[in-house]
Amino acid sequence: MEKYPLKRTGLSSPHNSPTYQAVNKKYTNGSRATYTANDDMIDISTSGSGTAGGDRSARLGEDEDGLSHYSVAFGGGVQESADIPGIGQYDDFHTIDWQRDIARDRMRHRYIVKRKQDSIWNLLEGAHDAWSGWLCVLAVGLVTGAVAGVIDIGASWMTDLKFGICPQAFWLNQEQCCWSFNDFDTGNCTQWLTWAQVLGTSKTGAGGYIISYLFYVVWALLFAALSASLVRMFAPYACGSGIPEIKTILSGFIIRGYLGKWTLIIKSVGLILSVSAGLSLGKEGPMVHIACAIGNILSYLFPKYGRNEAKKREILSASAAAGVSVAFGAPIGGVLFSLEEVSYYFPLKTLWRSFFCALIAAFILRSINPFGNEHSVLFYVEYNKPWIFFELIPFIGLGIIGGVIATIFIKANLYWCRYRKFSKLGQYPVTEVLVVTALTAVIAYPNPYTRMNTSQLIYLLFSQCSISNSDNLCDYNRNFTDVKSAIDIAPAGPGVYEAIWQLMLALVVKLVMTIFTFGMKVPCGLFIPSLCLGAITGRIVGIGMEQLAYNYPKMWFFSGECSTSDDCITPGLYAMVGAAAVLGGVTRMTVSLVVIMFELTGGVRYIVPLMAAAMASKWVGDALGRQGIYDAHIALNGYPFLDSKDEFQHTSLAADVMQPKRNETLSVITQDSMTVDDIEALLKDTEHNGYPVVVSRESQYLVGFVLRKEVNLAIANAKRMVDGICGQSLVIFTSGNPPQTLGPPPLKLKKILDMAPITITDQTPMETVVDMFRKLGLRQTLVTHNGRLLGVITKKDVLRHIKQMDNEDPNSVLFN
Amino acid sequence: MEKYPLKRTGLSSPHNSPTYQAVNKKYTNGSRATYTANDDMIDISTSGSGTAGGDRSARLGEDEDGLSHYSVAFGGGVQESADIPGIGQYDDFHTIDWQRDIARDRMRHRYIVKRKQDSIWNLLEGAHDAWSGWLCVLAVGLVTGAVAGVIDIGASWMTDLKFGICPQAFWLNQEQCCWSFNDFDTGNCTQWLTWAQVLGTSKTGAGGYIISYLFYVVWALLFAALSASLVRMFAPYACGSGIPEIKTILSGFIIRGYLGKWTLIIKSVGLILSVSAGLSLGKEGPMVHIACAIGNILSYLFPKYGRNEAKKREILSASAAAGVSVAFGAPIGGVLFSLEEVSYYFPLKTLWRSFFCALIAAFILRSINPFGNEHSVLFYVEYNKPWIFFELIPFIGLGIIGGVIATIFIKANLYWCRYRKFSKLGQYPVTEVLVVTALTAVIAYPNPYTRMNTSQLIYLLFSQCSISNSDNLCDYNRNFTDVKSAIDIAPAGPGVYEAIWQLMLALVVKLVMTIFTFGMKVPCGLFIPSLCLGAITGRIVGIGMEQLAYNYPKMWFFSGECSTSDDCITPGLYAMVGAAAVLGGVTRMTVSLVVIMFELTGGVRYIVPLMAAAMASKWVGDALGRQGIYDAHIALNGYPFLDSKDEFQHTSLAADVMQPKRNETLSVITQDSMTVDDIEALLKDTEHNGYPVVVSRESQYLVGFVLRKEVNLAIANAKRMVDGICGQSLVIFTSGNPPQTLGPPPLKLKKILDMAPITITDQTPMETVVDMFRKLGLRQTLVTHNGRLLGVITKKDVLRHIKQMDNEDPNSVLFN
Repeated sequence: MEKYPLKRTGLSSPHNSPTYQAVNKKYTNGSRATYTANDDMIDISTSGSGTAGGDRSARLGEDEDGLSHYSVAFGGGVQESADIPGIGQYDDFHTIDWQRDIARDRMRHRYIVKRKQDSIWNLLEGAHDAWSGWLCVLAVGLVTGAVAGVIDIGASWMTDLKFGICPQAFWLNQEQCCWSFNDFDTGNCTQWLTWAQVLGTSKTGAGGYIISYLFYVVWALLFAALSASLVRMFAPYACGSGIPEIKTILSGFIIRGYLGKWTLIIKSVGLILSVSAGLSLGKEGPMVHIACAIGNILSYLFPKYGRNEAKKREILSASAAAGVSVAFGAPIGGVLFSLEEVSYYFPLKTLWRSFFCALIAAFILRSINPFGNEHSVLFYVEYNKPWIFFELIPFIGLGIIGGVIATIFIKANLYWCRYRKFSKLGQYPVTEVLVVTALTAVIAYPNPYTRMNTSQLIYLLFSQCSISNSDNLCDYNRNFTDVKSAIDIAPAGPGVYEAIWQLMLALVVKLVMTIFTFGMKVPCGLFIPSLCLGAITGRIVGIGMEQLAYNYPKMWFFSGECSTSDDCITPGLYAMVGAAAVLGGVTRMTVSLVVIMFELTGGVRYIVPLMAAAMASKWVGDALGRQGIYDAHIALNGYPFLDSKDEFQHTSLAADVMQPKRNETLSVITQDSMTVDDIEALLKDTEHNGYPVVVSRESQYLVGFVLRKEVNLAIANAKRMVDGICGQSLVIFTSGNPPQTLGPPPLKLKKILDMAPITITDQTPMETVVDMFRKLGLRQTLVTHNGRLLGVITKKDVLRHIKQMDNEDPNSVLFN
Repeated sequence: MEKYPLKRTGLSSPHNSPTYQAVNKKYTNGSRATYTANDDMIDISTSGSGTAGGDRSARLGEDEDGLSHYSVAFGGGVQESADIPGIGQYDDFHTIDWQRDIARDRMRHRYIVKRKQDSIWNLLEGAHDAWSGWLCVLAVGLVTGAVAGVIDIGASWMTDLKFGICPQAFWLNQEQCCWSFNDFDTGNCTQWLTWAQVLGTSKTGAGGYIISYLFYVVWALLFAALSASLVRMFAPYACGSGIPEIKTILSGFIIRGYLGKWTLIIKSVGLILSVSAGLSLGKEGPMVHIACAIGNILSYLFPKYGRNEAKKREILSASAAAGVSVAFGAPIGGVLFSLEEVSYYFPLKTLWRSFFCALIAAFILRSINPFGNEHSVLFYVEYNKPWIFFELIPFIGLGIIGGVIATIFIKANLYWCRYRKFSKLGQYPVTEVLVVTALTAVIAYPNPYTRMNTSQLIYLLFSQCSISNSDNLCDYNRNFTDVKSAIDIAPAGPGVYEAIWQLMLALVVKLVMTIFTFGMKVPCGLFIPSLCLGAITGRIVGIGMEQLAYNYPKMWFFSGECSTSDDCITPGLYAMVGAAAVLGGVTRMTVSLVVIMFELTGGVRYIVPLMAAAMASKWVGDALGRQGIYDAHIALNGYPFLDSKDEFQHTSLAADVMQPKRNETLSVITQDSMTVDDIEALLKDTEHNGYPVVVSRESQYLVGFVLRKEVNLAIANAKRMVDGICGQSLVIFTSGNPPQTLGPPPLKLKKILDMAPITITDQTPMETVVDMFRKLGLRQTLVTHNGRLLGVITKKDVLRHIKQMDNEDPNSVLFN
């Protein structure tokens, strides 16, 4: 009870407890993951004290009410019994047992199916149970779409607030303000006043510029300060992109409160604020976290999912798809992102539900229509030119450049995050945010391309030049009176060259600022900054290619396609390809990336360039540095994540990895010769999560496996409830009678014994063991030789062994 | 050697042997799967006779040359040794061991990586090895695209040959013929002569009609007869759609020759012929089979894949994606189809390669451009109207109708196929094809909608009515001089009502003919017929809705959208939704179906209607009959397919399923007390594929597992090569010295002992066991209790048990 004084409250009622934020703060204060708990952690709260255990059981008994009235054999031969509540729950920072949870769910399902005939009510209950998965993802889709709409509208309004205000209706952003008064020239409408105008200065001129600059910086600081403070005070878990943690959680780890309602609220509000502050970050990654939090909260409405960690992860996978779906308006891309990048256990049923969830979310967002266009896609563009085969060379070139930029970003960002983690900097998160915001704002304002919203910049870079586009980027020497000439190829004007210089500056500024921004204690994603870096690079290369084609249209590699005056090169397409390349290099997404970009443009035609660039970028990235940003952050924080993409390349055997090592002894429980006192002493002396049960200490033939938690609960319960059980009572795991009849009555614990533990032999190669851990979702496996128990391998042992074989510090797992 | 006299030839050289077709015929003659072999089959060719074994070893030794020079510990502690060749090969109709194959590949990989430093040549070899996966899928994509182009062009030409000929250039189809002489009115161009014109009769009139009718029927019979004869004579495996068999093969089963070069050639040619014959079948399903055959053949160029059955299945998964990609011009849909419907083991690496492969194939097909449009999509349509929310009701209604039609089709088709299988009908495949073709041709010709190519009909039904569309379906009372009025809503003219009647007739004819066609001994798929049935239904419903909106535009549910004169209802969209519904009901595809349809239209906007219909159809289908057509055919043919979609719902334990049953004894080999004669007697008396090795017959503590085939090979080899080994030699599986020193020298077989067999306890619930079989790809698992061996569960036992629990005949597995 001493070490984790608030733990039990957090555990029994993870989201409603008033002390919940305090719990969170204790474990994450100042750093994303400073928890000291580990896979073998003792749960002190239930051991040693009968009162505490009883108290807890009582409370958990209420919690489990909906489930406790069935008590039949389940899972690996274990009995779920109403008299030992709390079974099937996990402690914070523990690994879940997929097999057991899935078995528990099938048990429950069978029970409901069996009762269906009994009454109409039971039939309805059965129908509700069958539908609850669909209902749950429907609800998640609806709420995610709505929340995304609110965030989009809020961020758009507050971003414009930095520049000015709509006096007649302050709640409108610039575009809506101008439109609502039928003034469609957004750039110069009279209804929208810049802060300079509000203060009576002219819009242009030095005075106006300085006032606007000041307001820009002050608003940015205000937003950033608010965002960082909210995160620090109410929900430390709301910082960052959340994707590394979501990946870890979906792989079967418990981080209580990470997907709770406070995290959801603070992350949503903080995201609006930090995006509006003009920091170099995006809202797409955090949207995944927000969607998963929504999924987690709504899953509690459906006990089938809320009470079963393995089943809950099916909902979370669907939620992640919905998150990407609303972030980009790309439902198919979202599903593939969830499948490829985020999810761990992805049965086909989940594929279908994810798709449904993603679609509903996209549909709701489209109905809210935050962007005011009909496509519900952030960067909807339509190109009308096919690409030339020769262009594959610059596209692959962009892929290589993208991979290099991505590697620079990952390495620098990791260096900085590690520095933050292990230096005093980590103790001043709000100050850090303020300094970075101030720097960003001051540097960004003078350059029009960094001043504008990053999404707007990307959209501008993706677009084709048309008559209506008056940006410098489209300052070609064209005759604008002739509509047809707008699509002819033309020499670049001075505006284009100016734009190129500004873009190059913007590239450097964005790269540097993003390195410092990603990892700060505000909600921040890096999809948008990555896309932006790539789009800038791509557009510059595209303009270069375009001018090449203009000046040398007869070159063989343009193969005559540019000899007519048509514009055979689309610089916007290069921007898109470049964006895909950098994002692919940073995240190592492949198929989902291409599909997301494809959904943005809506044309199958450009898949080949996108894929060429994404592949080149991934290969360059893999060659220069093994991990994508998410995996790197997982490793940095030491999350217990067993990556299904990495192949285990070594030749070690189970015997090399198992605990105990040669000179230690294995802690086992015998099936019928230990007393309650013996077992309590064993539990006190060792810290394992569970203990193998053997026939006898001499023979070591394996009988089964019991969990520490369940032994504790059972003994505490028996002491309290059953007369005559004392320290001298024999504990018996067999079904027969005890060998002795004298002394106190024996304590029969066969019902908590898992008689079907997964076992392997000591000669099993570790690659098979790793495969089994991944595919079967194991917490531990028992190692035998000719039927005799030799040792145990836990997931932590596996992770440590992998680190060791890769010449990394094995102790970085789970501790930091 | 007596029972399967041709088997060995087929096995050692599956595709190049001249007797290969004879082998195929023996096992499949007249029926798709009449093989009598089973999972426990004895491989007589290697037992009993030293000469035969030696002969075979010699030949296999050559085969294995590329691999035999390394000999290190691999897989479950087994040694791959050059002196016992043939290890790691599978017999026909056997199940593969995924774990072992994957382990073998990692071993090989490690060996190559280790040798990389040795010389430049080895470095190149390493690079080639690393790239070979990509090279292989690239090659598969290129060839698949090219073959698909040839098939499309051939089928189009031969379909038109039924109607007429291009005298100046007989190799052109009607469209090309007209176009090549600059006559763009395809319907009435003068260059193309119908057969009536060729024979001097007028094109119209009774005489011309009869001549055309006759030619149509005669050509159809000719093509069908040729197709059926080719299949019967050269490649019996080339019949059907092939998807059930591909699913079975990908789940880890060996059917030699199913993906061989003869099957490929005959299936391609036969497909052109049977499509041209006007039978109610499509070429999309067989395209998957063709692509997989290409993948299989090309994988032999890369020993990494060709020599490893588990790795080869990665290539086959990518090939299946390419097959769907070229069938529909939908690369993303193809990948999802492979993931959702076909594949079993689908690591992320395969996802990425599948995508690449599908894209290359689609790209090549687009370059060949068989359809003469720039979209490379069979039914490219673009709608310009959004759908109204109210329309969801008819869309869901279409889904329900689609599910009902699909169920009728599946049940009737299964009934007919079962009748064919167990009656004399199965013995006359060519006659059956001719009768069905004659009936189809005679019935189809009079109705213009059944006379035309099914793909053309679908395209017509999907299309919007525009000025250029002169079909009856578009006979609205519109003022065609006003371009704008063409998109106004209008009352249907008499042509539309006539078309509706003809379409209804076509629906019935197509449904009945498809029931009899699918399963005949010609290459035939059912994507196109299913789509067609749904498109007809949908178009009729759509026209109904349209006329409703015309007559009652003010109804509340049209919510004012139809009050303007714009056409608010698109009948073509209904056709598409209906098509998706029937196809979804027949195949139970979900996400991949929606994505394929989405890629056809290219608009995210219509995903919601498509999904609503697909979901309704799937649920109705699931409620009326459990299985989709592919799974039903798998069950009908008794393929050993362990479906990962079905959840195991029962509560049985491993002890209930394992062999031997209570009153039988378990065949085991002891580790150091059996002689060569004992073991040979055991092998002769029992038929198991492998034997557990135990410490002693009394204790039954498990040591490991040996395969029958390897024991046989090892003993035969030892008798031939090692001096002194005779029947009295002790066989020793331990590493120590034998307990006795007298008598002949012992035979040490530790190197073929798998010391890491997967074991479970007898109390393990079968749901966990089924899960392990699926996820780990096991062939068998050993059942223990407290370390003692109790029995064995093979994949066949699991499949039989599932059948038994579902109240089906357990003996239908693998036998029929």
